[in-house]
Amino acid sequence: MTTTQATNDLLKLSEIVGTNHVLTAASDVESYATDWRGNYRGTPLAVVRPANTVEVAAVVKYCNAHRIAIVPQAGNTGLVGGSVPDQSGQQIVLSVARLNQVHSVDLHNNTITVGAGVILQTLQEKASEQDRLFPVSLAAEGSCQVGGIIATNAGGVQVLKYGNTREQVLGVEAVLPNGDVFEGLRGLRKDNTGYDLKHLLVGSEGTLGIITAATLKLWAKPRSQQTLLLALPTLPAAVEALQIVRDACGDRVTAFEVFSRWCLELAIELVANIADPMQSPSPWYALIELSDSTDEAALAALAEQAFGALFERGLVTDGVIAQNQTQAAALWNIREHIPEAEKLYGKAVKHDISVPISAIPQFVDEAEAALAAQFPAARVVNFGHLGDGNLHFNVAGKSREDCAAVFAQAKSVNAVVYDLVSKHQGSISAEHGLGQLKRETITHYKSSVEIAAMRAIKAALDPNGIMNPGKVI
Amino acid sequence: MTTTQATNDLLKLSEIVGTNHVLTAASDVESYATDWRGNYRGTPLAVVRPANTVEVAAVVKYCNAHRIAIVPQAGNTGLVGGSVPDQSGQQIVLSVARLNQVHSVDLHNNTITVGAGVILQTLQEKASEQDRLFPVSLAAEGSCQVGGIIATNAGGVQVLKYGNTREQVLGVEAVLPNGDVFEGLRGLRKDNTGYDLKHLLVGSEGTLGIITAATLKLWAKPRSQQTLLLALPTLPAAVEALQIVRDACGDRVTAFEVFSRWCLELAIELVANIADPMQSPSPWYALIELSDSTDEAALAALAEQAFGALFERGLVTDGVIAQNQTQAAALWNIREHIPEAEKLYGKAVKHDISVPISAIPQFVDEAEAALAAQFPAARVVNFGHLGDGNLHFNVAGKSREDCAAVFAQAKSVNAVVYDLVSKHQGSISAEHGLGQLKRETITHYKSSVEIAAMRAIKAALDPNGIMNPGKVI
Repeated sequence: MTTTQATNDLLKLSEIVGTNHVLTAASDVESYATDWRGNYRGTPLAVVRPANTVEVAAVVKYCNAHRIAIVPQAGNTGLVGGSVPDQSGQQIVLSVARLNQVHSVDLHNNTITVGAGVILQTLQEKASEQDRLFPVSLAAEGSCQVGGIIATNAGGVQVLKYGNTREQVLGVEAVLPNGDVFEGLRGLRKDNTGYDLKHLLVGSEGTLGIITAATLKLWAKPRSQQTLLLALPTLPAAVEALQIVRDACGDRVTAFEVFSRWCLELAIELVANIADPMQSPSPWYALIELSDSTDEAALAALAEQAFGALFERGLVTDGVIAQNQTQAAALWNIREHIPEAEKLYGKAVKHDISVPISAIPQFVDEAEAALAAQFPAARVVNFGHLGDGNLHFNVAGKSREDCAAVFAQAKSVNAVVYDLVSKHQGSISAEHGLGQLKRETITHYKSSVEIAAMRAIKAALDPNGIMNPGKVI
Repeated sequence: MTTTQATNDLLKLSEIVGTNHVLTAASDVESYATDWRGNYRGTPLAVVRPANTVEVAAVVKYCNAHRIAIVPQAGNTGLVGGSVPDQSGQQIVLSVARLNQVHSVDLHNNTITVGAGVILQTLQEKASEQDRLFPVSLAAEGSCQVGGIIATNAGGVQVLKYGNTREQVLGVEAVLPNGDVFEGLRGLRKDNTGYDLKHLLVGSEGTLGIITAATLKLWAKPRSQQTLLLALPTLPAAVEALQIVRDACGDRVTAFEVFSRWCLELAIELVANIADPMQSPSPWYALIELSDSTDEAALAALAEQAFGALFERGLVTDGVIAQNQTQAAALWNIREHIPEAEKLYGKAVKHDISVPISAIPQFVDEAEAALAAQFPAARVVNFGHLGDGNLHFNVAGKSREDCAAVFAQAKSVNAVVYDLVSKHQGSISAEHGLGQLKRETITHYKSSVEIAAMRAIKAALDPNGIMNPGKVI
């Protein structure tokens, strides 16, 4: 691209969105050009901030006609470099942040329609104001945006009960790579009229189009909750316990998280205000949340019962049931600060993996053994969403000093873990997506048939390859 | 196609699946060539019945190379002509009926993996034997097969709580139009590694590939159920009641069906062993089912409470709570025999539509008024799944004699109903799909952008157009 051409492009884009919303100064584009973890730093031609869907469509039409690559961006909190530009200086970042209107709430239909730039926490609050729940909840909820959680099919801690973001999306409005607007803001539970384009866009990480708005499901707000922290002797005991708790409590199980003793120790040692909630140490812990639409007493009785049943069977050796919201928050506080503790300890090799729940114990045994054999200085920070088969099976050093050496072998560590994930029919990216980080890696673990089908779809919908090139596929 | 070529094709297909499994005699192919409702009668070149996925793939590869059109077929119980061949004598029906193995059950993962030819009722029974629930339930469950319910994203009476068939599918194995096998039998709740091909195949009605097996979610089996039949003064009262019951009972609401007084009268008059369950007539009825994983007493109390709350607000004028399973079955019996009663009454113009739940009353008012104005002899048989916004808004005659005259104007009646569905952002096919029946109609109600995207995907994955041509798109 010549400078003259670039100048002309910026002029045209400014005509669409206004000069104030085409950012080019290094200090202005900095935050848009760097990913959350600071692993990717790009150089955009410009950051373009349209005010509405019509402007998004006009920008895309212009870029498609002139073969300008677009990197769609919402809250930019992704963990795989999916929402930042490359270093060519030729890609524009298209921020949907200004599409931040809550369009409508339909209480009888239990739906809310919002722009792609609405922050997740705002969405949760709007739902709550209407005595409803929007159940997607994750660490970045204070800054991630609706367009991003849909484009990456974000997970979180309540997937067990409510599903991923995908399951919350009844309809989307999106600008396709040719600039056409797909007007799919339908609030229907049943619609069998052809290929489900919405499901194709969800999780496509901005490579098939730009989501501009969505109609999302709302749920009945829980009226009562019980939070339990249980001490377990083994990981198989946790899998067994999950089953028993679900049998006893049904859909009331809204979270079932696990973490190893070492995770707790790291949190106690490195994070303020975290203490061991039990008298003696235990190899594993499960954090369980039960929710119901009826009174507290019945649920409390159910929690006691479940705890008793697990204790009797020897699946649980100790436990705490939170007696009020403060105690519940303290238990969640432990789980939520494990990533921070890990970060303070040292740089770890991250894995966001899933396997069938039944395969978790064997996968963990095999992976621990293989890592011990090949990387004697390595130690696993093992925690995650057992109820969804999703572990953040991160690999740090045995001591803080060992971390750097282990991290230097990240690629080899990845290979050991991913090979075993693959053996157990798992996923190398359970909830974070592929982005740039795993774009090449996935080609080793997904069949050529699947990759070919994905490429065919990409080529069909984005023949000029302008939409988030270099990501996913 | 010349006769010699056809003979040669049949020979080659026989080499793949065995001579006994290439049917050509008119009496042998009859049931495969005619749809459930008897509206479509095709003439296949042959019915081919492969024994396994390898054979399916070989058949498809041969057909793709020789441009032979394939009509995938499972239980052949669809209502839109999607699984029967045309009359050219050049299409083969590929039946997956012999892929009827239950491959595995994974209790800790709560999944079951089955072949596409497994009958839905068999699947339900296998789940039940393991103390689990497979929740998809519909009239044809005794003969419809897994491949069919996935390919059409079947609905039914429990979608409100458990979702459509789509929501039950964790993984599929499918043969793509080029004969490649997509090996996607994953049992994962979280997997964000690229475009979701599974969701593209679900609901594509055999036009993008042939589903050969699936890994499906299992649910906790309900331990207690309550069934209520309520009399309501108006349809808006039913919408209001749905909200109140969901607020009070949360996810325990597993069904919320409605039907008009006339539906009940038709059932009483024309179906054996159905009596009016209440003392005085009511314009509307709601059949509600609550399910829970805990004891009967608590749920019974909740049902009483909900009924009381509705009665107090004047939303409900009378009601029956089933005191045992026999009574519950009798209440369900009314709802389930409405289609039969309608059929015995006369031929009706069928509509399987959905609109946002909040829009149902207005849609029904407008549609009734428009029909009354244009078709004075018409009367609506109005029943359906209110909890999903899905009505079977069928149009019969005011008297039995009027039915034929109304049916003769079916296309015009459709147009009146579908235009209003469209006005309310609804779907002209909520759970039955497009097939042949609505293939042309949908082009009037879906945007050209969506149709173009669907065509691009179809062309990308099936460039030779061999997979179920003439259906959906």
